[in-house]
This record gives sequence, C-alpha cells and structure tokens, in this order.
Amino acid sequence: FPYGDGFAFARATCETETMVALATAMVGEERRMRLENVLEHRSFSLLPILEGVYDVGNILAVCRTTEALGIGCASIVSSKGLSFKASGRTSGGALKWQHVEQFETSERALRVAKAKGYRVLTTEFDGAQPLSHYDWTVPTAVVFGNEREGVSDEARALRDGAVYIPMFGFTESLNISVAAALVMSHAVTDRINRRGFHGDLTEEEKRILRGVYMSR
Amino acid sequence: FPYGDGFAFARATCETETMVALATAMVGEERRMRLENVLEHRSFSLLPILEGVYDVGNILAVCRTTEALGIGCASIVSSKGLSFKASGRTSGGALKWQHVEQFETSERALRVAKAKGYRVLTTEFDGAQPLSHYDWTVPTAVVFGNEREGVSDEARALRDGAVYIPMFGFTESLNISVAAALVMSHAVTDRINRRGFHGDLTEEEKRILRGVYMSR
Repeated sequence: FPYGDGFAFARATCETETMVALATAMVGEERRMRLENVLEHRSFSLLPILEGVYDVGNILAVCRTTEALGIGCASIVSSKGLSFKASGRTSGGALKWQHVEQFETSERALRVAKAKGYRVLTTEFDGAQPLSHYDWTVPTAVVFGNEREGVSDEARALRDGAVYIPMFGFTESLNISVAAALVMSHAVTDRINRRGFHGDLTEEEKRILRGVYMSR
Repeated sequence: FPYGDGFAFARATCETETMVALATAMVGEERRMRLENVLEHRSFSLLPILEGVYDVGNILAVCRTTEALGIGCASIVSSKGLSFKASGRTSGGALKWQHVEQFETSERALRVAKAKGYRVLTTEFDGAQPLSHYDWTVPTAVVFGNEREGVSDEARALRDGAVYIPMFGFTESLNISVAAALVMSHAVTDRINRRGFHGDLTEEEKRILRGVYMSR
C-alpha cells in the first residue's frame, strides 16, 4: 500500500480528515458512492510489472484495464523518461487512480516488489504453469514482457515462478493489454472464488485512500 | 460451421482428402501436430459480433484475440467495404484462421446468427447480467458495440439477453479487444468447467477444416 497519511501542498499540509471533509462538501452523492465502491474493491496485492514496453499507449491501456479490475498499482520498467500526461486522454484517466512507479531496470523493479512481499511470476511459456495452477490470494506481481522479446533474462533470474495463459489457436502471442486483462481477471476471479472477495484494504488504508482519491 | 466439403480452384476442384494428402506431403511434422491441436480445441459455437467498430486495427485485434482462444469465426457489421488484407501483419495472421463475415446492418448480422441457432447476448450495463449468470455451453453470439456509443438499438431489439463484465474501478469502459478477450475467455473457461472441453467440432467437421487450413 503506497500512500502515506495526510497531504502536503506547496505551502501547507492538512490531515486526511480535513481533505475528506473539504472534498465531501464539493462532490455529489453519486460520485461519493462510486468512490466508496471503488475503495471496497481496491487491492494493491496484485501488481502488474511492464517490462520493455516502449509504446506509452500500450502502457496506458494496461493501466486502464487493470484499474478497471480494481488493481491500484502498476510498475513500469523503462530507462527512458516516459511522458504519460500527454496521452492521458486515451487512458480514460486510469493513471489518475493508479499508483504507477517507474524503474530504470527490471532487476530494481523486481527486487522492490519482492522486498514489499510480492511473489513474482513472469508470463512466458517455457517451464510455466497455467493460470489455474496458482493461488492468487497470495500477493503477486506479474511481469509482462513486450511482444517481440518476451520477459527479460534479468526478470527470469529473479522470478518465483512462471505463468501462461492457455491458448488454443494458431495465434501465439497476445497484445499486452489483452494479456494483462486475462491474467489479472483470472486472479480477481480466483480470489473471489477462494475467499469471497477481491478488495483487501484495511479500514485505515481505505481512510487514507479516500483522502488521496478525493484530492484528485 | 461455415465450411463446405471439397475445394474449388479457378479451373478445377478436388476432394478434401486430396488437399490433405497434397499438403501433408509439403508440411512439417511440427506444423501438422499444431494443426491437429487447433482442430481439437476449435469451436464455431461462440461468435463475436462487432458492431460500429470503424478502426480496422481494432477489428483485427479482436479477431487475433478470439482466434487465440480457439474461436473459429467472427461477424463484423459495417456498411463500408473494409480492407483487412492491408493490415494483415498486425493481426498476427489471425484472419487466415478465422471465418470472418461482414454484414451491412446489425439487424442482418443478428438475424443470421439467430437463424444459425445462436443465442444472442449484447454487452452493456443496463438490464444486464454478469458473465457468471450464463451457461456458455449454449451456442452464443456476443455483440460488442463501439466504445463511444455502445451496442445499437437495433441489436438491443433483437437480443436474447445482455451481459456485463464485472468491473471494480473508476474506469467505466474497456478497449473492445480487451472486452472481447474477457468475455470469450470466461465462456471458454465456463465450458471447460461444465463439460470438460471447449472445442466441439464433429469428426466430419474436423476432416473438412483440416483441408481448409491446410490449403492456406
């Protein structure tokens, strides 16, 4: 869970409660209910890691898709300074609601994920298990490589396991946002089947995230 | 199942067996095994119908994704003459392996689907049931509208039911290839859970389709 309590502005800070009180006064009932529904189904214990994806449109498509599935965070590996703001339109504003971190190397992205307690699975075919093999209630980061080269050797060296999407046709690869959608949707469904729910924030985390989303 | 038995060339016809014998002599063992695997998991009893999608790239993305899931056919509603051949590269050749029919109107596309015995579901939110509500072993056509307007009133008037993809975030719509992937992947999984298999061609249909795919 990546957010701290309270807000810092250019010249001032305020408590989460103050932000929520301020925003509540400005926001309609429908939007507040929508926010509560999002908080109820939010999870930071699934983390897509996008590796070697150079096209900002593709990255935004993955963020948009995984945000729709209730996933609150994403990591991007890119040594280039990517400008997301300019393409914000096509993402349907997903970036506004997702905590996106950028890393210079895959090794760094995976080490940080592991340090935070995520199991790291790479998406590939060699030596991989199908989606149904894994218990997705375990906090899990999933590494998606680009379509041309797949996941990097760096990621392979650090992975805890590998997963593949069962496919039945002549087509051998999927667009990255489709692949992320299928993996993450399976994970969400598996969580609901195993424990009855997907969102897993504590009340304290919901309280903080309420303030963060209301401030946007 | 859209294919007839036998082949007609510009000046000659041949039987399916002749085509298979000819192609078998030309094709490697690995490719033949791949073909048999595809035939085993092929189904024409799920049909994506794409309505109001003007971007050929989006249409090809849906074909590519659904082909990967083992679905042998797709219908496209467009009054324009769409040129798919030019964009063949980005589809990963999916069109080569899918029977794609084009219709001038949604009414025509849906009436043809119903006449062939498909239950027709539209994807929308109003009055819709979640994916898990339906038994997907029933032959089913799913209508996908475009992102801006959703499914047409024409399609709504003829539908047998409506289905939605459960979403948990602020993002309210998905890219059409992502939506098609999530619906069709759910349908495939549901079939495997309910009856143990997804592909449902008869031996006779496999025999004919073997010839069709070998001729390509």
